[in-house]
This record gives sequence, C-alpha cells and structure tokens, in this order.
Amino acid sequence: MEPIRAEEGWFVLHSFYTVDRRHWAKLVDSERRDAEASFAKVLADYRLGANCQVNSYAILGHKADFGVMMIDPELGHLSQTENGILRAFPPGIITPSYSFFSLTEISEYMSQEKDYDRTLREKDGLSPESDEYKTKMQAFRDRMRFYINDRLYPKIPEHKAICFYPMNKSRGSTYNWYSLDFDSRKNLMAGHLVSGRRYQGKVKQLVTGSVGLDAWEWGVTLFADDPYYFKKVVYEMRFDEVSARYGEFGDFLVGVRLEPAELFEHLKL
Amino acid sequence: MEPIRAEEGWFVLHSFYTVDRRHWAKLVDSERRDAEASFAKVLADYRLGANCQVNSYAILGHKADFGVMMIDPELGHLSQTENGILRAFPPGIITPSYSFFSLTEISEYMSQEKDYDRTLREKDGLSPESDEYKTKMQAFRDRMRFYINDRLYPKIPEHKAICFYPMNKSRGSTYNWYSLDFDSRKNLMAGHLVSGRRYQGKVKQLVTGSVGLDAWEWGVTLFADDPYYFKKVVYEMRFDEVSARYGEFGDFLVGVRLEPAELFEHLKL
Amino acid sequence: MEPIRAEEGWFVLHSFYTVDRRHWAKLVDSERRDAEASFAKVLADYRLGANCQVNSYAILGHKADFGVMMIDPELGHLSQTENGILRAFPPGIITPSYSFFSLTEISEYMSQEKDYDRTLREKDGLSPESDEYKTKMQAFRDRMRFYINDRLYPKIPEHKAICFYPMNKSRGSTYNWYSLDFDSRKNLMAGHLVSGRRYQGKVKQLVTGSVGLDAWEWGVTLFADDPYYFKKVVYEMRFDEVSARYGEFGDFLVGVRLEPAELFEHLKL
Amino acid sequence: MEPIRAEEGWFVLHSFYTVDRRHWAKLVDSERRDAEASFAKVLADYRLGANCQVNSYAILGHKADFGVMMIDPELGHLSQTENGILRAFPPGIITPSYSFFSLTEISEYMSQEKDYDRTLREKDGLSPESDEYKTKMQAFRDRMRFYINDRLYPKIPEHKAICFYPMNKSRGSTYNWYSLDFDSRKNLMAGHLVSGRRYQGKVKQLVTGSVGLDAWEWGVTLFADDPYYFKKVVYEMRFDEVSARYGEFGDFLVGVRLEPAELFEHLKL
Amino acid sequence: MEPIRAEEGWFVLHSFYTVDRRHWAKLVDSERRDAEASFAKVLADYRLGANCQVNSYAILGHKADFGVMMIDPELGHLSQTENGILRAFPPGIITPSYSFFSLTEISEYMSQEKDYDRTLREKDGLSPESDEYKTKMQAFRDRMRFYINDRLYPKIPEHKAICFYPMNKSRGSTYNWYSLDFDSRKNLMAGHLVSGRRYQGKVKQLVTGSVGLDAWEWGVTLFADDPYYFKKVVYEMRFDEVSARYGEFGDFLVGVRLEPAELFEHLKL
Repeated sequence: MEPIRAEEGWFVLHSFYTVDRRHWAKLVDSERRDAEASFAKVLADYRLGANCQVNSYAILGHKADFGVMMIDPELGHLSQTENGILRAFPPGIITPSYSFFSLTEISEYMSQEKDYDRTLREKDGLSPESDEYKTKMQAFRDRMRFYINDRLYPKIPEHKAICFYPMNKSRGSTYNWYSLDFDSRKNLMAGHLVSGRRYQGKVKQLVTGSVGLDAWEWGVTLFADDPYYFKKVVYEMRFDEVSARYGEFGDFLVGVRLEPAELFEHLKL
Repeated sequence: MEPIRAEEGWFVLHSFYTVDRRHWAKLVDSERRDAEASFAKVLADYRLGANCQVNSYAILGHKADFGVMMIDPELGHLSQTENGILRAFPPGIITPSYSFFSLTEISEYMSQEKDYDRTLREKDGLSPESDEYKTKMQAFRDRMRFYINDRLYPKIPEHKAICFYPMNKSRGSTYNWYSLDFDSRKNLMAGHLVSGRRYQGKVKQLVTGSVGLDAWEWGVTLFADDPYYFKKVVYEMRFDEVSARYGEFGDFLVGVRLEPAELFEHLKL
Repeated sequence: MEPIRAEEGWFVLHSFYTVDRRHWAKLVDSERRDAEASFAKVLADYRLGANCQVNSYAILGHKADFGVMMIDPELGHLSQTENGILRAFPPGIITPSYSFFSLTEISEYMSQEKDYDRTLREKDGLSPESDEYKTKMQAFRDRMRFYINDRLYPKIPEHKAICFYPMNKSRGSTYNWYSLDFDSRKNLMAGHLVSGRRYQGKVKQLVTGSVGLDAWEWGVTLFADDPYYFKKVVYEMRFDEVSARYGEFGDFLVGVRLEPAELFEHLKL
Repeated sequence: MEPIRAEEGWFVLHSFYTVDRRHWAKLVDSERRDAEASFAKVLADYRLGANCQVNSYAILGHKADFGVMMIDPELGHLSQTENGILRAFPPGIITPSYSFFSLTEISEYMSQEKDYDRTLREKDGLSPESDEYKTKMQAFRDRMRFYINDRLYPKIPEHKAICFYPMNKSRGSTYNWYSLDFDSRKNLMAGHLVSGRRYQGKVKQLVTGSVGLDAWEWGVTLFADDPYYFKKVVYEMRFDEVSARYGEFGDFLVGVRLEPAELFEHLKL
Repeated sequence: MEPIRAEEGWFVLHSFYTVDRRHWAKLVDSERRDAEASFAKVLADYRLGANCQVNSYAILGHKADFGVMMIDPELGHLSQTENGILRAFPPGIITPSYSFFSLTEISEYMSQEKDYDRTLREKDGLSPESDEYKTKMQAFRDRMRFYINDRLYPKIPEHKAICFYPMNKSRGSTYNWYSLDFDSRKNLMAGHLVSGRRYQGKVKQLVTGSVGLDAWEWGVTLFADDPYYFKKVVYEMRFDEVSARYGEFGDFLVGVRLEPAELFEHLKL
C-alpha cells in the first residue's frame, strides 16, 4: 500500500477490546506467553516508527477489557498495526468492541496574532516599536507555536488514567452551532478554554477531529493521575454556555495505563 | 499498578452478569462447588480491605442473573476484584451485561453553615452569642458532618432489595439544567430532598457521581425491604419540578440481596 | 430467602423466550418429553401457591417464541419460578429475550366517595338521609370495591389472545404530564376510561405500575378472543387527548394462550 | 388451538430470515434438497388454505437473506406456518431477523356515499331521480366495493420486486396527527392518495394496520417490476403535507420475488 | 430470474464485512489461497459485465474489516454477486456488518437550460441569435450532459481512500425540508454545491438516492487520496445552511482501496 499522510496532523485510533476468556482458557501456557510477547512486540515495534506512539490501558466495567490509543503520521502503518494487535493474540481471542478514528487538529478558534496585536496597541497602549510590545508579541508567538505543536503533533501523556469520549456540537432547531457566526463561536469557545485551564497540571486534554471520519465530530481524550479530576473538569465545563447549549456527548470509557506485561498480569491472562 | 485514590470520595462499581447455563451444565459438581467457594472468597477477601464493601444480588428479569455493588477507596483494587469475580467462575461462564462506574460525592447544593447562620439570626432572631444559637448551630454542624460522611464514605445498607438506575439532568433547548444559575438549581433540589425524606426509614438512597466516568451523569442506588417503596418514592419524586422538567432516567435494575451461598441456591447453580 | 411482600399489590412478571432449535434438535425424545413435563409441572406447582397465577402464550413474529405472565404476592417465589422455567428446559435451550417487572396498583385517579357524595347532593339534589342516596352510594361503594380488587388482586383472564406493551407519560418541554396538577390529570384520565369501556366484553385491560421497577412507567396487558380488538381499542384510545399528547408506547407483543402441552405441539418441540 | 378469525380483515405476517451458511455447508446434499423440498411444500400447502397467500423474496443487503409475506384469515394457521417455515430447514439454519404483524384494513378516510351524493346534487346539479345520478352513483358504489375488497381481502401481486417499511403518524408537540379533527385528517389523506395514484400501473401499494399489534402503526408493502419506482413514489409522496409533517418511517427492506426453487438457486443453497 | 433494470440510473450496493478469524485460522493454506483466488475472480468476473464496477477497501476500526462498492445496471446480477462474495470465502468466514442499497440519480436542483437562457438574455443582454449566446449555451449543454452522465452513469474513482455515510433531510417541526417550496430548496442546494466545489481535485463526491430503498434517503461516497480532505470538506459543508438546518448524518465508514491480493496481504488472511 502506498503511504497515506495527512496534509495537516497525525492519524489517531482509539481501539477497545474484549477478551474471550473461554477460548483463552483453552490455550496452553506457552501460547499465552507467546500472545503476551507478541502483543508487547507489536507495541514496541510500533514505537520505533517515526512519531508513532501507542499506549495500552485496562478499561473499567463491561464496555471493554482493554484499549489502546495510537498516533501515527501514516495511515497504512496505523491500519496494519490495528491488524497486528488482533493477530498478536491467537485468532478470535480478542474482539474490538469500539473504536474511534480521528485526526489531530488545531482549533480554528485559537488566538490570532492580529487579535493580540490589537490588544497590545489598543488596550495596553503599546507601540509596535516598543520593547514591551516586542517581548510580549514574541512570548505570544512562542505560546501559539507551542499550542499548535501540542495539538497537531502531540505526545501521549504518561498519566495513570485515561478517559475517552466522543462529542458533537448540536444542530438543534433552537441551538444550532453551525448556524452561529464565527465570532459568536469563538467567544463561546474562549469561555470554555478558561474552564479547561482551571485544572492544568491535574488533567491534560487532547481534542482530535473526526468530522467526516467517524460517527461523532470530535474525540476528547483526558489524562490524569486521579480519575476524580475527570469528573471534576467535565462537570464544571458542562456549565459553560458552549457545553450547556451546544455540547452533545457519547459514552465515556475510563481506563488505567498499563504496559503489556502489567496488563496481562492485571487481566490475569 | 501504583495505587489510585480519589482526592475526594470512594470509587463505586455496579456490575451485572448473565450466566451461560449451557456451559455451567457441563461442569462436574466439584467444579461448581469450587466456583461457589471462589466467588464467596473473592467477596470475603474484598471485605477485608480497608473500607472495601461488596454485596451480591439476584436480579429480576432478563437484564441479568445477578449483580454486585462494590465500594473501594482504591481503583486498582476495585478493578482487580472486578477481574477476580470473572475468574472465580470457570472461563466464559459469566458475562458482564451492564456496569456503572462512579465516585461517591456530596451534593453541591447541601445546606451551608453561612445559610443556617443567617436563618438563626435573621429569621429566628437569635444572637450568635446566645446559648440557643450555639446549641442549634452545633446540631446543624453534626447533621452536616453526618450527611457528608454518609455520602462520601457510605456503608452499603443491608436491606433485602436493591434498585439501581442512572440519571442525567436535561440539556434541552427549553429546560436546560446547566443554564440555570446556582440558586435556582439549589431551590429545585431542595424541594426534591423533601420528597425523598418522606420515605425515610423505608427507602435509603445513595447518589454517586459519574460525569466524565460513565455514559450518565449520576447513578442512583435505592435500598428497601419492600420494592413497593421503590415504585412509591420514584413515582412521587417524578412530580417534583426538578425531576419533571430536568430529570432523565435510564433503565431500572431491581434485585434481591443474597450472599454467595444463597445466590447459588437461588439460581440453582 | 426471607419472604418479600408488597405493602400494596402483587408482583407481576411478563417474561418472553426464544428457543435454540439447533440444540433442541440434538435432544433425544425422552429429554424433550421431560422438558415438556417439567415446564408443565413448574406452571402447575406455581398455581398451587396462594393467589399465584401463570399463563403461557405462543408469541407471533421474531420477538419471542413464547412468553409467560406471572402474578405473585411474594417476590422470592416469583423469582424462583422465573429460574424454574429456565431450568425446566435442558440448559441453554431457552433464552429470555424480554421481560417486564411491575406491581399491580390502583389508579390514583379513580373516583372518590367524596366526589360522588357531592354529585348526589348538588347535582341530583338528594339528601344523604334519603333512601335513594343510600342505595346509590352503596352501589358506588360496591363498584369501587370491585374495581380496587380487580386492579390490586386481579385474576389473569382466560381469553385466547394477549397483547403486552409498556408505556410512559411524556415529560417533553411542551407536554409534560408530571407538570400538570392533579385535577387536570384526573380529567384527562377520565376521558380515557370512557374510550376503554367502549370495548368492554371484547377486551379486558390490566395496567400495572413499574415506575422504579423497570425501564417504562406502566405495563399494559390486553386480553381478547379476537386480536382485531387490540388494534381497534388501542387505535381509538390514541385519539384521546391523554394518549395523543402524553402517551409514549414501547413495542407490542402479541400472543395466543396455550397450555404447555398445546404450546409444545404448536412450536413442534 | 381453536380458530382465531378477525371480525374484519385478514392477518398479515412479513417475516425475514438470515441463513447460517456455516451450518448449511455441513449438510449433505440430500439434506439440502430435503430442505428445499420442505420449504416449497410448506408454501404450497399453505396456498391450499382458503384465501391463504404466501410469496418468498430474496432480500438485498445485510438485513436478511430472504423473506416471506403471508396473508391468512385464521391466526392459528398463520402462526403454525410461521413455525413450519423454521422447521422446513434443519434446526438453526435460518433465524428470523425481523418480522411485522398486521391486519388488513380499510382507511377510515375513504370516500363515503353521502359525500358523493352531495357532490352529485350540489356541485353537478343532478336530481337523485335522474338517470345520470343513478349511473354515476352505481359506478361510485362499484368503485368503493372494489376498493374495500382490495384492501380487506387483497391478493398479493406478482410483481418482480417488493419493498416493505413500517410507518407511524407523528405525535410531536407541534405536529400531532392524533390531535387533528377527522376532517383535517381526511383532507390531508386525500392529497396523499392523489400522489399515490400518479404511479398506478407502476407501483401497487398495500397498507395494513398494526396499531396494538406491532411496534409501528402501519405496514406499507409496495410491489413493482422496477425498484426505481419505489424510490420515485416514496420520494414524491414525502412532499405531501401529510408525510412531510406527520409521517415517520422505519427501515426499508427491498427484495426480488423468487419461488423456492429459484430462491435456493439464487442464494446458492 | 428475469433482468431488472431501472428506468433511470444504475443500482449501487455498498457492503461491509467482518472476518471470523477463529474459523479462518482453522483453514489449511490451500483453502486460504482458494478463498483469495475466488474473491479476486468474483470481482474480476463482475467487471466483465457491461458497466459493472466494483472496488474493495480495507476499513478502519471495529465497524468492518473490509468493504466493497458495486455499481450495476441490472439488479439480479448485483444481487448474485453479493451472494458470490459471501460464497468466495468458506461458509461463515465473512459476515456482512452493514450495507446500503441505492440508485444513481441526478439532482432535481441541477441547472436548467431555461434558467441559463434567462441569464444570458436578461443579465448578459445577449440575443439568442448572437454567436456568443450560441457558444455559451452550447458549453452549458455540454457541462450539463457531462454532469448528468457523471451522476447517472458514474465511474468509481481510483483514489486511495473512500468515505461512505448515509444522509437524510430533516423533517423536524421547525426545519422541515419537505415543507419548503422548490425554489427555496434549489437556492439552499446551490450554496452547498459551491462549498463542495472548493475541494475539486482533492475530493470526488457521489450522491446516490435511497428513498424507498434503504433506511436513509441518500448515500454519500467521497473519494480522496488524503482522508484529511474528508474531514475538511464535510466540516466546511456543515456550516452551509442546507446542512446546518436540514442535514442529518449517519455513521461514517472510512477505508483504503486495495485490490484483493493487497487486501488479503493487509488483513493478513
């Protein structure tokens, strides 16, 4: 297959699996250790790919036994590894119960240099020639560059717990996000960002775009060491006008990050 | 796995299972008794953990054969016991048909000391220096401490029957809970609490938070010796404005509390 | 298990099953006749319980092969018989495809003595001391006692056909049943009762309450010798304001009453 | 089982099946030919029943492999043939994936003699004694008798293709069919009938009633030699006010009529 | 079966499959290579049919392992090839997880000669006798003939990636597409076409009609070499009034075009 790279951003796949324990129990011990070694190898090999990232998670409840989150600049490689995970186990042992396909993206509502220029000149009364203007503008540019990198070319954080959920903006007859003009949307999103920042350090958030790629418009992945903060941040953001009026949410999957050996130990495989 | 504890509250898992009776029938009697002993041991061992609680229930109808409700201050321990229950049975005998993951929490609408202080001074005309004020305020503080403990660090009640259902607050275009201000929400909740109290002694209620953790925002667990009161209290509360206008409810699962030996006897396993 | 009796009403379980014909075909004839005898015995034994009632039905279409409707004053007995039906068949032969758990109840909108007293005095101009008043009031009390008995302690009718469907009252933003006051609801229900009575003798209706017990608020069971009247009565009642504006309906299951021997003959088991 | 006949109309069952090809492949050739012969015989025997009609169809796409449409004046006979089709195949080979149970019915909005009488007298100025009146009225009565027969006692047409879909009239808060008065509904239906007639000769339509019998209120079966006309007629009727505002539609199943031998050849069974 | 051809347009089937890897693993190598050869032959033979087209795709995520898109002027041939694909594999190895049946069609909102005539005469002031009028009108006719051919008799493009999703026009109480007059609909569609054209060269779109044929009203198939453009074009079009107010979308399936040999290699079959 010829390589498929996105003009902007990296491909992301969240994939969740259940284990058929009846068939697992029929394996002899060497087959089980082979499965563990193969699964570990698929993940390790994948990480050798340039910018390829993958983590595995034990998932709580009946929705899945475990999941992986993969980021890849090349779609064929991602798709082959998806097949590779299935084949790391003896056939039929694991079944994908849910998956989500998306692309990293920057928000179209992110701050723009021209807006900040206006703020510095009109609100702060700074001349573009002044040192203060130049320092502040340089800092702004650095922040933006950092933000863009962080969204388009993210590194999967190493926190203990993960939370994934898909999201839409509503298209109801009264509150229709797609009928608002750009500035209204930008203002609504700005308030939302402030809420999100309140838990900086506690929760890291990655929003990836899936319009035209999956059943929902965005996928949200949260990372934290204490899942209490998943509840805290999602609950508080729900009161932001943009969520209250325009947010639609799918199911939430919560998991704990475990490398293959720990995961097999945890699932008693 | 490193321990994962919540900054506030304990982790709660409701998990419901169906039994594959065709495969159960193929077991020899010693395997069946081993399963029963293992299941009993997983529950007994779990209860040895500090503040770890678990009860098992026979569930009515086609939704599940039985269920467990687990409360745990530590997520890894909870998740391992979830796996332990699966493995207490020969592989594939039980399958989780539904589960719900949440955290204990106190309501943000609970009475506050500063509100009660105002009531005592302005409505009752008491001086903060008076003995009556001090006695009443102390009683209030005791009640609140008891309430907080009861919600954050609950003990699973021993009533004969259980009812579990998940719940959302509506985000419709006309009635949107998350667009109301705090005082409006507090007033709506206050009326609701009065309805709930009408059946004190008959029905015990535990509301746990699942925003950001599961598909619904809250899980409600009711405990009673007579399921008639599940119907009575849920029906009456449905007329409270907060339920009528803002409550959205999932499926209701009703069960009867049975210790492992009784449960196996009841299910004829 | 200790007995669980409702403070008011009897427990009702509708349970529907599909037959795994591949595994049935593998049984030898004696196993099949044993299953038939066991199923018949579970039902016959159940009927020996005080006020315990059960009927079996062949169900039309793909939703189920057969169903049972059980009424029981004691929940443990009901739940054990539910398990007994499963075990009457070799393991895994039948699978519950749907069930509905409810309690018999009287409508809170039924006529009250005080209303009828007012009618007699104010509208009919009768003195409470008059013989006519006394005769009429006595007849009213008899009718109400009959009605209450019929709803709380019903006998499953012996008609040829059955129709079951679950029902909610709507909680939409425009038409919200639970935001109406009691008198408005009582008036709306009154018109509905008139429609229902039009087919007295042709269709018998039993409404049982499931708020807090199952996914819907009420279960409606219709009994008739000609299913044409299921269509007729449900269609006509749909135009009553209470149905048109406030009724929400689930799936409809239609069946034909057959005792175990006839049912096995009909299903060619 | 005692015969169950409807006071008005015939019973109709649409039933759709998937074939388990893994188990089919394990049959020896004689078993396969037996299945084909049995299936053909069940259908042929059924057609011997007075007014009993049945056709079989290969279904497009993943929804089913094939389907049958049965019309029967007697419910027990219909239900037994439903079981007979399952048993024509070795056990477990076919599984019903969907079914729909309904009764033939005449529309309550059909033209009435008294309306036509008024038209002839007031609009056309004809005297009821005149020959022209009598001729026209006789023709009207013939048309109505034909229409009633065609709806209550229909013959399944022999066209090459079939399309089945279920339908409701909406009960939304703004557009509620069941809150309209009879004349408004009759007028809305009249416009609809005109659209339907535009494709007379190309598409034949049969509407059967399922209120109180199945999950939807009506079943619509279309017959045509070219499925292009299914699209054409359904699309055009969607703009009729009665559809645009009040019509709710389920899934559409499209099939090609094939007698058992052709069907087995087509499915390569 | 007699041939079934549409009065206008070609039949289209999108069909998606999952592979049962447990049973695949039990095949011996020659059986696997036979399956690959058979699958390749079914597709190759199909392409020999006049105007018959088929492509195969590896699908991302849990929704399917692979899919095919088929275009055929004759329905029986299409349906037989659908069965042929199933039978190319040993029985039960692949299962259709989703499919979509539609017909190619031209939009009723396409530009009309009479509109362009008016533009040329009234807006551009050209006489129908002038050379410029004649040249421009001829070019218009060529464009329209090309457009009609492209929609009614399309060629499946050879791009690397495919995206399929089904679509409805809303029939809500506020925004009801089917209650708008023709000119309003035409104007809304015109704005939409402009958005679509913005990515000409990057994304090729095929809209096929399924009113009366499948559960949704239209199927949209997008083709691109970079799936980034699926996201880009669908996201931008979502802001067009016709999408924002009237568009309803089903699930999105994304795949990569692979000929049978590559597909088997990719899926490691």
